[in-house]
Amino acid sequence: MTRPRFQYRPPNFDAPPLSGAPEARFVPAPADGVLPDGFFSTTNLPTYVKVGGAWRRPRLPRMDCVIVRAPQGDFVVAEPRKVSRGTPVAVASTEDGSEGVYVHAEGFLGGRRSANEFGFMQTEVSRERPVDYGVLAQLLGEEKQRRGRILWVVGPALVHARAREDMIWFIESGYVGVLLGGNAVGVHDLEAAMFGTTLGMSSTGEGVEGGHGLHMRALNAIRRAGSIAAAVRSGLVTGGIMHALVTHTVPFVLAGSIRDDGPLPEVITDTLAAQDAMRLHTTQATFAVFVATALHGIAVGNMLPAFVDAPAPDDVRPLTTICVDQTEFVVNKLRDRGTHQAYGVVTNAQDFMHVLRFYVERWEQAQTPASLPR
Amino acid sequence: MTRPRFQYRPPNFDAPPLSGAPEARFVPAPADGVLPDGFFSTTNLPTYVKVGGAWRRPRLPRMDCVIVRAPQGDFVVAEPRKVSRGTPVAVASTEDGSEGVYVHAEGFLGGRRSANEFGFMQTEVSRERPVDYGVLAQLLGEEKQRRGRILWVVGPALVHARAREDMIWFIESGYVGVLLGGNAVGVHDLEAAMFGTTLGMSSTGEGVEGGHGLHMRALNAIRRAGSIAAAVRSGLVTGGIMHALVTHTVPFVLAGSIRDDGPLPEVITDTLAAQDAMRLHTTQATFAVFVATALHGIAVGNMLPAFVDAPAPDDVRPLTTICVDQTEFVVNKLRDRGTHQAYGVVTNAQDFMHVLRFYVERWEQAQTPASLPR
Amino acid sequence: MTRPRFQYRPPNFDAPPLSGAPEARFVPAPADGVLPDGFFSTTNLPTYVKVGGAWRRPRLPRMDCVIVRAPQGDFVVAEPRKVSRGTPVAVASTEDGSEGVYVHAEGFLGGRRSANEFGFMQTEVSRERPVDYGVLAQLLGEEKQRRGRILWVVGPALVHARAREDMIWFIESGYVGVLLGGNAVGVHDLEAAMFGTTLGMSSTGEGVEGGHGLHMRALNAIRRAGSIAAAVRSGLVTGGIMHALVTHTVPFVLAGSIRDDGPLPEVITDTLAAQDAMRLHTTQATFAVFVATALHGIAVGNMLPAFVDAPAPDDVRPLTTICVDQTEFVVNKLRDRGTHQAYGVVTNAQDFMHVLRFYVERWEQAQTPASLPR
Amino acid sequence: MTRPRFQYRPPNFDAPPLSGAPEARFVPAPADGVLPDGFFSTTNLPTYVKVGGAWRRPRLPRMDCVIVRAPQGDFVVAEPRKVSRGTPVAVASTEDGSEGVYVHAEGFLGGRRSANEFGFMQTEVSRERPVDYGVLAQLLGEEKQRRGRILWVVGPALVHARAREDMIWFIESGYVGVLLGGNAVGVHDLEAAMFGTTLGMSSTGEGVEGGHGLHMRALNAIRRAGSIAAAVRSGLVTGGIMHALVTHTVPFVLAGSIRDDGPLPEVITDTLAAQDAMRLHTTQATFAVFVATALHGIAVGNMLPAFVDAPAPDDVRPLTTICVDQTEFVVNKLRDRGTHQAYGVVTNAQDFMHVLRFYVERWEQAQTPASLPR
Repeated sequence: MTRPRFQYRPPNFDAPPLSGAPEARFVPAPADGVLPDGFFSTTNLPTYVKVGGAWRRPRLPRMDCVIVRAPQGDFVVAEPRKVSRGTPVAVASTEDGSEGVYVHAEGFLGGRRSANEFGFMQTEVSRERPVDYGVLAQLLGEEKQRRGRILWVVGPALVHARAREDMIWFIESGYVGVLLGGNAVGVHDLEAAMFGTTLGMSSTGEGVEGGHGLHMRALNAIRRAGSIAAAVRSGLVTGGIMHALVTHTVPFVLAGSIRDDGPLPEVITDTLAAQDAMRLHTTQATFAVFVATALHGIAVGNMLPAFVDAPAPDDVRPLTTICVDQTEFVVNKLRDRGTHQAYGVVTNAQDFMHVLRFYVERWEQAQTPASLPR
Repeated sequence: MTRPRFQYRPPNFDAPPLSGAPEARFVPAPADGVLPDGFFSTTNLPTYVKVGGAWRRPRLPRMDCVIVRAPQGDFVVAEPRKVSRGTPVAVASTEDGSEGVYVHAEGFLGGRRSANEFGFMQTEVSRERPVDYGVLAQLLGEEKQRRGRILWVVGPALVHARAREDMIWFIESGYVGVLLGGNAVGVHDLEAAMFGTTLGMSSTGEGVEGGHGLHMRALNAIRRAGSIAAAVRSGLVTGGIMHALVTHTVPFVLAGSIRDDGPLPEVITDTLAAQDAMRLHTTQATFAVFVATALHGIAVGNMLPAFVDAPAPDDVRPLTTICVDQTEFVVNKLRDRGTHQAYGVVTNAQDFMHVLRFYVERWEQAQTPASLPR
Repeated sequence: MTRPRFQYRPPNFDAPPLSGAPEARFVPAPADGVLPDGFFSTTNLPTYVKVGGAWRRPRLPRMDCVIVRAPQGDFVVAEPRKVSRGTPVAVASTEDGSEGVYVHAEGFLGGRRSANEFGFMQTEVSRERPVDYGVLAQLLGEEKQRRGRILWVVGPALVHARAREDMIWFIESGYVGVLLGGNAVGVHDLEAAMFGTTLGMSSTGEGVEGGHGLHMRALNAIRRAGSIAAAVRSGLVTGGIMHALVTHTVPFVLAGSIRDDGPLPEVITDTLAAQDAMRLHTTQATFAVFVATALHGIAVGNMLPAFVDAPAPDDVRPLTTICVDQTEFVVNKLRDRGTHQAYGVVTNAQDFMHVLRFYVERWEQAQTPASLPR
Repeated sequence: MTRPRFQYRPPNFDAPPLSGAPEARFVPAPADGVLPDGFFSTTNLPTYVKVGGAWRRPRLPRMDCVIVRAPQGDFVVAEPRKVSRGTPVAVASTEDGSEGVYVHAEGFLGGRRSANEFGFMQTEVSRERPVDYGVLAQLLGEEKQRRGRILWVVGPALVHARAREDMIWFIESGYVGVLLGGNAVGVHDLEAAMFGTTLGMSSTGEGVEGGHGLHMRALNAIRRAGSIAAAVRSGLVTGGIMHALVTHTVPFVLAGSIRDDGPLPEVITDTLAAQDAMRLHTTQATFAVFVATALHGIAVGNMLPAFVDAPAPDDVRPLTTICVDQTEFVVNKLRDRGTHQAYGVVTNAQDFMHVLRFYVERWEQAQTPASLPR
């Protein structure tokens, strides 16, 4: 398969209708966390505001937010709750530039747009559609080569299923720039590290004696140690996903939910603080993999821009996302928030991780000679 | 259908082996939020600890917690994170009383246990199994008659689908003692109340112009008003689920999640504070209905005891739960946490609410003459 | 909701490019059931062949078939297996008329095509999208008023679930022109009629003593009677769906499958003979309802044209289809084969039937005064 | 994982209550394909009838059939439709031997039955439960070593997804004793062999020009050749699953359904004839793998005994079944018909085949030295 290459083409601001567009209008927020009437609600696509005769692209793009003029004079996409009283907020009811705000929906299809490409985008996610793991492996491998920041969002099913070893391999092999998940991912991984079970089931899916309370005992041991990192350093935890993250200094965010037992010490229990911690990473991500999580997947999907931002327009590129879940329903939810290069895989987390690793290993072997310096 | 009646029969503490059981052992917590080794991890079933020669049932039962001796001398089931240094915590590795802690798993089957009853419990949830709405309506109706506290846990699909009118009817008709949900339930209901859409779709499922940002505008309007309650009082919001809750003074808890936009002013963004607020209600609930929510449903399911607690053992009864979702997977997850009287319904939230209301209305009509005093 | 009205507009054959199109080419079939190279494979949309300078629309349209010139000189869409040696078969590799064959994909959008309408068509099926039962009821009601032929395709889940009474009501009320299903639909309905169970479960979902073999006993009783119709006439079967069909002389086809026990005497065990029997009805259908069946639903979906055929082009209209299943996956499969007016409903068969009946009854009540002759 | 070994222990016929059981009663069938009142409906478990003072196990066990005395005097399990007038049919309403018919449900749990084993059986199928592919590979490998007859039942999703290569590998490597499927499996495999597409999608999931009709062209080409086997021999088909079956002389049955286009020449269009052809293989099967097929899976599941029959009771053993589907719903349906050793895997067909092959290859490598003759 030759993958479609989407070169970003900035809009032609010198031709009508954009050449004649008015300046964007900014109105001060009437109160902390309250927006002016008619605020412009952002999308995850490249967006421009006309200010001082020039079209400028606000930093830190994401959807369902607003464009504010920061004190330093630059333009930033901000969550409404973070807007202070008096901050100038862009106001517009259209996206076509006629009010000075332009959303560039077509930017990645440029002059090469064709019915076939369009068809490619539209292809429906289905369990009956073949997945080309070779392409996924190549995309992931190339992203590592160009030193991109690969963001993983994972749910606890990845830990329950026998995908822990494969996740560890991806961490150790440099394919994980940051891992986002919840308390359960940590708890089940640490239960597995300490007791060999997850939710009281052995790795072969059988229940063990007293298994019901083992995740509570794992939680207690980590809380006693003070933190996951401390438990790793002290030798209490000697393997697993969290161990690999700590020992390879890969950052992670564990966001709290009302479903949590414990929680683990590193869990950020305030959901707004957790969103802030996650967004520090989503704004730097260049690639994203979502596995078996609706809650965290949708939360991150709402934050991710559809593209990798860059100072030079020519360096702007689609932010590839791979969305994996057992059902078309969740995969579509994630993919709908995605980029022009979003891949949906309807399968089991365990098998996905296993097959993807196999293909990435094979891709690496094929690369080695060519990549070697002479 | 004649429903099985489960009369609770307390254990026979005067006969072996319980008559010869030792006292329960309590060990002080070594630090705030840290448990002693060997702590007893609770279930949602009736549980007894032997103290001073007597078997006592700790208050506020729920699963995945611990039994502590409170300063006043009584026994309470507490979340590990709420245990202070020095608090005595029950320690046991068995549930059969041989260490002074007894979990009464069979209590609701008593002497009338039969293969048929067991079969009833085990019946697998399936989209192909008929649902007897007549029984569900009768259970709900009787619970209202005995002035029970009916707890509803609902997901946003209930609002997207055309089930708002039916939910309002249940609130107005006295079938809702408390409503637990998340920010999205409130946002979509308020968007519908203000703009006639949810997520930008009209009630017939069609997209409307500018619909994409309407939930942001609804959020902003409520934030400007200061609270949902204020928006109702000021006449900004004149209908819908939140309006019905406020005007009928039905309490509600909106728990925060990382997926939230806004959030609404009433949302409790800290997940531990939200758990505390929810548990104030789960400990008083006598009946529970879960509709179309995995996150909130599982969170509440973890908190709910399998039975309605009561001072007199004869008044202890199963806590009926009705679990509704589109997939067997989620219904089973919720039902597995349930009571001896858990009903699973695999269907769409819209249709469930509609048919249930129809049957409850019919049940009410059938009751009226009989219930009238002469 | 104001429903979109799709008026069919025939193509303009007098303008280029169609005005300059060549005659369609026909090549004789080389052997019985074998097609000439390059045969034109049909779709379910209005299709025209140019013959003798005129554009003619072949009769009995359906997809995945071929256009043949019948001995009488007219043009018919035929299954390849039914083409005899020597029969002239249309040959073309394009659908735009440039080889004399024209597929009129746009015919129902005519001059009123707009982005919004297109969006309406595209709206994705989802459990989270509201279903406007009022519109479905109106469509069904109007179809009965205009004496259309409403085709139902139902799976056994409709019988297991408590939807039998509602199905019977639709039959007795004149909303069923023909019913297509399989052996299981008949067996479970007759088991219910004779023993009050389906697959050994009572109508409340409980297993009954000896229930496992009851469907075998029902089968045997009918086989002994000679036919379902005979069993109804003899008084062996006094209620249920099959009873309603027989007593109201509504035709039905029970098509055989390898999963069948028995089978019932009326079941057509040869799948090609069953297809022929089904197609006799699909070619006359003016409306279709699919409930809870992937096998029969897809089989019928493959046969149904996207439109109601009529001699006068102005009478051609979309063939409304309603597709109901528990999963988006099956609903999409059915809907993809559908017409411009295909409604997907992701829900449980029991609840669908119940709510639809409720709305149809309400629609009827609203109609009565207006429809009454003065 | 140490797999549970289920040694079959025949019932103790010399002890009460079986020692005092009466003879089984046989009543002649009143007409062709019609059973006497009170006929005994079979299960898929080891079953005995007492005749002439001895307990005999009827041949060709399967569920939902009857036990007849064959003209030669032996006892056979037969489909009701195949019972001729006058044939003696076993009559009993109990399974405990009290009427001379005994179903040995406990036979595989013997004296070693324990709560834990029972728990193993009961473990619910779930996407969140780890699958031990090592055990599946070992079971499959051992079955090949002991020259068992491994029956595969596959759906078209296996062909759509990129699992063709893996299926071919299993055929070529001797792991397929017989393959059962439908017309679609053959058509899509042959379309792929001739055009490189399935349903007009390339192996990477993209649509190709004119793809819509390619399965019709593949069908026509095979029909012209006269048969799949002829198309392979003539060089028209040079690869794929059907090619591998023909060239390795692995028998296959393609059973017809009403959904079929074509059909392919080898397809058995009469469903009863197809059942007969399938049962010739199910009675000889010693292992079964079901992948991505509800229709064919359930049809075969209804036919398969829960055990591998053998003349000597000690050689009777559970018939291992592996059931793979994307949903718990279908996996449970298949598994419920299964044996004491039924494995459910909730995943995508493509990934399942890929991972299973990987593990079987690894198992083979580990076996080689040990298995080599010295």
